[in-house]
Amino acid sequence: MEAVGLITEYNPFHNGHAYHVAQAKALTGADVVVAVMSGNYVQRGVPATFDKWQRAELALLGGVDLVFELPFAFAVQPAHIFARGAVQLLADAGVKTIVFGAEHGDLDFLALAQQAHQRLMADKQFSTDYSQTYATAFNDVLADVVGFRLTDPNDMLGFAYATAVIELDLLGTITLQPIQRIKAGYHETQLVDDHIASATAIRELMDKQASTTSFLPYVGQQAAELLAQGAQTAPWSTTWYQALQTKVMTTPIAELEQIYQLTDGLAYRLQEQVAQHLATDFTTFMAAYKSKRYTQARLQRTLLYTVLNITSAEMQTAMATPYLRMLGATTLGRRYLKQQRDKFSLPVIHKVEKDDLTGILALDYRAGRLYQLFSQRPADLAKAQDTGRIPVFIERG
Amino acid sequence: MEAVGLITEYNPFHNGHAYHVAQAKALTGADVVVAVMSGNYVQRGVPATFDKWQRAELALLGGVDLVFELPFAFAVQPAHIFARGAVQLLADAGVKTIVFGAEHGDLDFLALAQQAHQRLMADKQFSTDYSQTYATAFNDVLADVVGFRLTDPNDMLGFAYATAVIELDLLGTITLQPIQRIKAGYHETQLVDDHIASATAIRELMDKQASTTSFLPYVGQQAAELLAQGAQTAPWSTTWYQALQTKVMTTPIAELEQIYQLTDGLAYRLQEQVAQHLATDFTTFMAAYKSKRYTQARLQRTLLYTVLNITSAEMQTAMATPYLRMLGATTLGRRYLKQQRDKFSLPVIHKVEKDDLTGILALDYRAGRLYQLFSQRPADLAKAQDTGRIPVFIERG
Repeated sequence: MEAVGLITEYNPFHNGHAYHVAQAKALTGADVVVAVMSGNYVQRGVPATFDKWQRAELALLGGVDLVFELPFAFAVQPAHIFARGAVQLLADAGVKTIVFGAEHGDLDFLALAQQAHQRLMADKQFSTDYSQTYATAFNDVLADVVGFRLTDPNDMLGFAYATAVIELDLLGTITLQPIQRIKAGYHETQLVDDHIASATAIRELMDKQASTTSFLPYVGQQAAELLAQGAQTAPWSTTWYQALQTKVMTTPIAELEQIYQLTDGLAYRLQEQVAQHLATDFTTFMAAYKSKRYTQARLQRTLLYTVLNITSAEMQTAMATPYLRMLGATTLGRRYLKQQRDKFSLPVIHKVEKDDLTGILALDYRAGRLYQLFSQRPADLAKAQDTGRIPVFIERG
Repeated sequence: MEAVGLITEYNPFHNGHAYHVAQAKALTGADVVVAVMSGNYVQRGVPATFDKWQRAELALLGGVDLVFELPFAFAVQPAHIFARGAVQLLADAGVKTIVFGAEHGDLDFLALAQQAHQRLMADKQFSTDYSQTYATAFNDVLADVVGFRLTDPNDMLGFAYATAVIELDLLGTITLQPIQRIKAGYHETQLVDDHIASATAIRELMDKQASTTSFLPYVGQQAAELLAQGAQTAPWSTTWYQALQTKVMTTPIAELEQIYQLTDGLAYRLQEQVAQHLATDFTTFMAAYKSKRYTQARLQRTLLYTVLNITSAEMQTAMATPYLRMLGATTLGRRYLKQQRDKFSLPVIHKVEKDDLTGILALDYRAGRLYQLFSQRPADLAKAQDTGRIPVFIERG
């Protein structure tokens, strides 16, 4: 069986994603669709609208056959680390082609990345460390080499996937297949009337407490019903912000400086801004914490790392120990897994063992527990994210 | 001018306290009433109903002339440390007599404590460390020497004051004057109809959202108005409990073990019980965390230390650096202060300086900021507890 891979957040899964799944299959002729999906938090550093189990189920209903969790240590990271983690997992899971949407679907991302990579390797001054400036430096070189700069978000992600393929030495093993994005882009908030809307637009509709039928043009029945109930956890601006304030106010600066990416004076800046904004809302605080040096997403991620108390040391350990955590499968997905599993080099986690909680899964476990604690509905509050859970199963194929 | 000293929590100040103030003056013939009062948290480890400024003002209105804050490092502690801190502050402030209510007002507490102390000193096995078993050991010896055991809460506190006088070498400098407690005891929740009710009964009335007029039989006008608005900070069972869960879930066990009094396996027990009770209410959690070995108050204090992230090392430092933080004064109180201040050996803090916040006041500052953050009313949320505040002043005397 041949598998095509998708790198996803599905926050939440909508008709555009279903179209993407169908296209990936059609374009590659693959038998099985394998998705790597962010867990309970998405890349820009906020809790996902619904937990990983509910989102995995919607993905299966939408045509995906096998869903693996992108561990927190890769999911909530700058694009190049996110991309590298996702590509590594898909490659290990035996995927031959990764299909992704791009604003410029006609670009040869692998060729571009190779040119940039060669130039960078030739440049002795460029460090291969995963520093914050890495992605920017790469794009700078690309602009220099090919004469233009990637500015659209999905193009940039595609370029990050291509770079990951090269750096993981997967050229020849993994092919990248961009598809031209149609309709709503990530940042577009307008709902379009022909059954495809961006996830952002759908989340905004949710903020307005829209009814099930309002969502039905853009998502499946089950997703529409979930969306009508509102987000699973409290919004950042309330519970999470208070948890951030509490953490920062009760933690000595030397300890805050241990938090991942709270470097170069950011810990001090955070402490100062939290102190000055004790009585203000999150938006006002964030405007003050913002700096030209860092993107909004990067700063938002530092806030999440702080609430979750994730140190640099812990993050490095977690990044060094990837795994394939199964969130869900169809009958077909299961058959693929059974057939291929022996070839995987990463551990496949089907059901969590006690040792995992303090070991390989420590970060995801902690993140999942906070996600659970900050749930807004009693049923979700009572349901653990990692212990006692087995992958979602859907009969198909 | 001669001063009489009171050791108080005033949570909140009521007619019984006013009676106590008047009696203290009448019995001793003192010119000035000096109270040492718990700050934003009371001895049993919960936030006070109103902040220290509002409670100090009510105390001044009720007849007290000078209010000093009992620092967190003494206020939220087992009785013997609480007593020692309070006696030390009053003695330094030039107080000659400490008046306190006792269930057995006819006991000679100093004589009893002296007998117990002599016996203890003769016993080489008894450590003078402030260990948890200290108070119990003292009472055991007392029972052995004088043939009975103090069981009523105010009697026990009186005995702790007497022990502090002896240990601080203040015999002959400080006199203790018990007065027979009348009417409502601390633990009595029934409101009595002749203008005196216990603080517990008043807080319960507040939980029922009673009107100003319902409180007026038991407290002054200003207190009644405050009480009708409900408690200043969120109740333990909501915001504070969630902060506790968040802290415990995101903190490694080795770090939790650094928290003050989270010793002898308590850190592990706390971690385990929080994990098991993520979705349950505070009462259910507390019933599971409870153990025969420790009192409810002691366990509740460990929860507060945990939320505030107070380590043993910090607490030891804070206990070693007492100070006289002025919360309020009448005209007479000011005059007394002016006259006596040169004789004080402890620093008097009138207005907080920036260095104090990371120095001598670090613990109270942090505790006050959480108290502020968890305020339920916007006006309180906007008002810092320690920075930019000056003592409350009332013209009298």
